[in-house]
Amino acid sequence: MQVVPPALDRLIDSLAKLPGIGRKTATRLALNILRRPSSQARELAASLNELHSAIRLCSCCFTFSETDPCVVCADPKRNGEIVCVVEQPGDLMAIEKTGSYRGHYHILHGVLAPLDGIGPEEIKVRELLARVASGTVKEVLIATSSTVPGEATASYLIDRLQGAPIRLTRLACGIPMGMDIKYADRHTLAKAIEGRSSAR
Amino acid sequence: MQVVPPALDRLIDSLAKLPGIGRKTATRLALNILRRPSSQARELAASLNELHSAIRLCSCCFTFSETDPCVVCADPKRNGEIVCVVEQPGDLMAIEKTGSYRGHYHILHGVLAPLDGIGPEEIKVRELLARVASGTVKEVLIATSSTVPGEATASYLIDRLQGAPIRLTRLACGIPMGMDIKYADRHTLAKAIEGRSSAR
Repeated sequence: MQVVPPALDRLIDSLAKLPGIGRKTATRLALNILRRPSSQARELAASLNELHSAIRLCSCCFTFSETDPCVVCADPKRNGEIVCVVEQPGDLMAIEKTGSYRGHYHILHGVLAPLDGIGPEEIKVRELLARVASGTVKEVLIATSSTVPGEATASYLIDRLQGAPIRLTRLACGIPMGMDIKYADRHTLAKAIEGRSSAR
Repeated sequence: MQVVPPALDRLIDSLAKLPGIGRKTATRLALNILRRPSSQARELAASLNELHSAIRLCSCCFTFSETDPCVVCADPKRNGEIVCVVEQPGDLMAIEKTGSYRGHYHILHGVLAPLDGIGPEEIKVRELLARVASGTVKEVLIATSSTVPGEATASYLIDRLQGAPIRLTRLACGIPMGMDIKYADRHTLAKAIEGRSSAR
């Protein structure tokens, strides 16, 4: 017997399409939304409806933005000579939260994944090479994830940018702050030893 | 610097109001929604918008339903002489999934929580007593959660229904199926011993 009302079932279906949300969580969320005032559901619906129409990609760095160029690219106080290459707009947001980077960005919108048919043409590699070729960029900081596809993408970019008259850098790899060394995995520990810095 | 576009930020705010969704998860979900086709966001928005207008409470058992009476109360094949009392519509859905209950329900929409100002008048207790007083009900199966407020609500209901000429039952309490006895907590194990059944 179908005891879940169809309208509730449709919401559960839609929520269950989100990443990391299974049917059980989707049901819990939907029932919770139903128990609250309808104004909250409408507010969420309105945010969803305006999302894609309000946000586009910055034509320079390709981050999500309501303006073009985005706030970072448009800011005269930021240093356009350094370009930090990240996989996704979420990575840019994470770096901005640190407050310790004052350069520009370049969002690849993905990583190389040949088995899934994602080659350099599917991500914003050509656009990065064009930015570098334009001559204003003096340093490219590659900040892809330290996962297998992230590293492969970094290697590919390093290879393609080898001949360019720029400084080519990577994020430091090592022990996370606050982590007990005995819990670090051996690859991280090996990287930390390899990249050790002078203590005085 | 506010690098999160306002439209994205509003969606993150709305998502973060859902239970069990913090700002980090909300950001991950919002970025994922933005990366997918806008049709999916619109579909979710449409489900949210129709939710409260399509669904009301069944005037008999108070579950969420698009029809009144709900499908369970309206089904002539179900036994209206047994009423299973649960806290929330989600509990009804869970019991329906078992396929082993063929009676009616009564949704309390909460549990007694005197410290939060939730007394019998705030949940559907009066309505349950009226259903029992109407004379058609022969058994009330109390299926509130086996938590402290769930048990307190059950005790209150048992007290109020003490004089009624009905059978008053509770869900069995014991070892969950597939659980190793050595991992059961001592209260559950004590209940299981207390409620032991004849093996042959």
